[in-house]
Amino acid sequence: MLDIANYASGLGSQARQASRQVRALPLSKRNEALKLLAKYLLQDGETILAANAKDIALAEKQGLTAAMIDRLLITEARLKGIAESVKTIASLPDPLGRLLEKRTRKDGLKIRRISVPIGVILFIYESRPNVTIDGAALCLKSGNAVILRGGKEAALTNAAFAAVIGRALRKSKIDEHAVQCVNTADKSLLDFLLTDTKNIDVVIPRGGERLITAVVEKSRIPVIKHYKGVCHIYVDQSADPKSAAPIVRNAKVQRPGVCNAMETLLLDSRLKPALARNILDILASEKVALVGDKKAMALHASVTPATDADWDEEYLDLKLAVKVVDGVDGAIEHIHRHGTGHTDAILAKSAKAQKKFAAEVDSGSVIINASTRFADGGEYGMGAEVGTSTDKLHARGPMGLESLTTYQWLVEGKGQIRA
Amino acid sequence: MLDIANYASGLGSQARQASRQVRALPLSKRNEALKLLAKYLLQDGETILAANAKDIALAEKQGLTAAMIDRLLITEARLKGIAESVKTIASLPDPLGRLLEKRTRKDGLKIRRISVPIGVILFIYESRPNVTIDGAALCLKSGNAVILRGGKEAALTNAAFAAVIGRALRKSKIDEHAVQCVNTADKSLLDFLLTDTKNIDVVIPRGGERLITAVVEKSRIPVIKHYKGVCHIYVDQSADPKSAAPIVRNAKVQRPGVCNAMETLLLDSRLKPALARNILDILASEKVALVGDKKAMALHASVTPATDADWDEEYLDLKLAVKVVDGVDGAIEHIHRHGTGHTDAILAKSAKAQKKFAAEVDSGSVIINASTRFADGGEYGMGAEVGTSTDKLHARGPMGLESLTTYQWLVEGKGQIRA
Repeated sequence: MLDIANYASGLGSQARQASRQVRALPLSKRNEALKLLAKYLLQDGETILAANAKDIALAEKQGLTAAMIDRLLITEARLKGIAESVKTIASLPDPLGRLLEKRTRKDGLKIRRISVPIGVILFIYESRPNVTIDGAALCLKSGNAVILRGGKEAALTNAAFAAVIGRALRKSKIDEHAVQCVNTADKSLLDFLLTDTKNIDVVIPRGGERLITAVVEKSRIPVIKHYKGVCHIYVDQSADPKSAAPIVRNAKVQRPGVCNAMETLLLDSRLKPALARNILDILASEKVALVGDKKAMALHASVTPATDADWDEEYLDLKLAVKVVDGVDGAIEHIHRHGTGHTDAILAKSAKAQKKFAAEVDSGSVIINASTRFADGGEYGMGAEVGTSTDKLHARGPMGLESLTTYQWLVEGKGQIRA
Repeated sequence: MLDIANYASGLGSQARQASRQVRALPLSKRNEALKLLAKYLLQDGETILAANAKDIALAEKQGLTAAMIDRLLITEARLKGIAESVKTIASLPDPLGRLLEKRTRKDGLKIRRISVPIGVILFIYESRPNVTIDGAALCLKSGNAVILRGGKEAALTNAAFAAVIGRALRKSKIDEHAVQCVNTADKSLLDFLLTDTKNIDVVIPRGGERLITAVVEKSRIPVIKHYKGVCHIYVDQSADPKSAAPIVRNAKVQRPGVCNAMETLLLDSRLKPALARNILDILASEKVALVGDKKAMALHASVTPATDADWDEEYLDLKLAVKVVDGVDGAIEHIHRHGTGHTDAILAKSAKAQKKFAAEVDSGSVIINASTRFADGGEYGMGAEVGTSTDKLHARGPMGLESLTTYQWLVEGKGQIRA
């Protein structure tokens, strides 16, 4: 126990120390390290793939599901993709030193608000080992130090990645503690890290609801997170009949296992029955299991009864809850009750309905006449993303490099004193 | 206990409900309510002053200090000042609906990031009853609902303020639960409110370190706060000899009891002894008790030995810790060790020293060649302020109306689906 406490306290204080160096590094230096990282990932590819093969073998022996093993797997093509994403991050503009606000007072005092790194970030995530590299690259680019705590299933792959990251940092003469990968699966480590308010500025957990709840319960450090995405599409009576069905299909079927996929479809009671049936036909033909309220069941034979729990369910699967609501007010009321603040969409030509929906639905992303699947950092043009936030402080929706910065007030005078 | 639980849960759910109305109010409606509030504060002045007189009488009976009683006191002039500040808030530009970012994709999808209210705010504060009105006015202007929990010493004054606020809301036809003043001193109420993550979005505690620590310990809701301000001024060898002493005097003496007053003076070891002595002379002549390290003691007879604890002390009084450091590096090292991230200043003509200090000192405000006392919402031109944050997520330094908003991504399409 004492060893873990010491290890945790070392991780924190070394990260804090390193954060002071990376904070002051010029952009060219940060990008140089990223380019080396991309290069070494390919150079050391065999070592990484060999380590990953051992993780995979152990996972198979332990009977992990095929989906979990697939998430764990690094192939040569995937490794190339990971290296490419590091190069992309190197090519993005500097998130630091942006002038966010500027005022000059009558007495000549200049007041500026400037973006700066957050400091030390603790990333906690599950099986996908590519998050190790994404996390390291995004934090380095944004001048932050990071402590990476990946899933135990990926321990050997992450250790191989850590070695490559260390090599890139050493070669760039950057303090190696700028990126530290936790090398123990001991769960008590988190108890120590999550209370190290002196050295760690923010915690970003990525993973299932259980992991995130546990982190929020234990942490004394601010946490940026999203629990789950129960995303709605509301089809208004004024919806464009041509695009409605393709959007609904895309939002449910294109990749049902992700957080911005639609989980509940809200149909306006004044929607033409033919259009409503057409939408449900297409979903049924895509083998989407439909559950719904009585009015939805009356619309289509393949709709079976929904339980109360269905309206709060994140299926992450080819299953959909369908409800008939009374206009945009009914839709908003349902979303207030059951939404998770992730992404909600309205399909409507009526400007009044669009405006009301956007003004009253309090979600990170509100989508008008397009698929919920667009709620993503890459699709929003932010380059890479750290994750998604359903919180309201600091960062909301897709989180890119900017979400890894805060700001500082810089005040420049010529001897002014306060009256 | 059950009653308090019910009361707390009612406060939360009523606030959430009201927040949905105020979020959608046009600016004119929010400003109308504020102007009525300012008017009624003066109309109902006698009732307010009478309630305050009872609070004051009880405080005197209970032997509160003169300083505490002064903070509690509302005079006719102070009441006018409070009404004026409400009028000022009404005159400020709308913090909502600001376009923060905009992109149009090749497929025509429009992506905007727009400022929106946070939702429901819980304000917890101590004796000064004017915070009740400031908090209500700032939250209403920014489209938030607020739960106000003031100090028990000000219970009757706050109840009188609550009545005036209610009158303004009713007259404007705004849900009265948009501003709720807690009417019990029962401490268990906070235990319930601070875990109501469903209905409350952010907690802002204002007060002593003990209050803030207790809130952080208990809260499952994000907290924006500042514990204390151990503000430093570093006088570099390149400092302007004319303005250095007046700035140092202003930062320590003009109002020593506030968080942006200087608590530690760092003198460059290469500073001309005559200038260092001149600065200490002026402080001594202002009756500032000086404690310092051996080198500081060697500079001036009135410096007595500092203990280790002095470097972390927020005196809030005419007392100052003085240390001789080796250049800007020595100053930065000291601030890294003992700073609280509030406000730190450098007095230097050297652009290199200024740049290094600004790049490496990670505080909410960094001041160059001016007094730390400027670190204030009013002085920064933000109009009213909610408080100051030494946190890094969301809001930092002086917090104005903007700090009571977050943003929402608004995506507008013409049927786009994701490939």
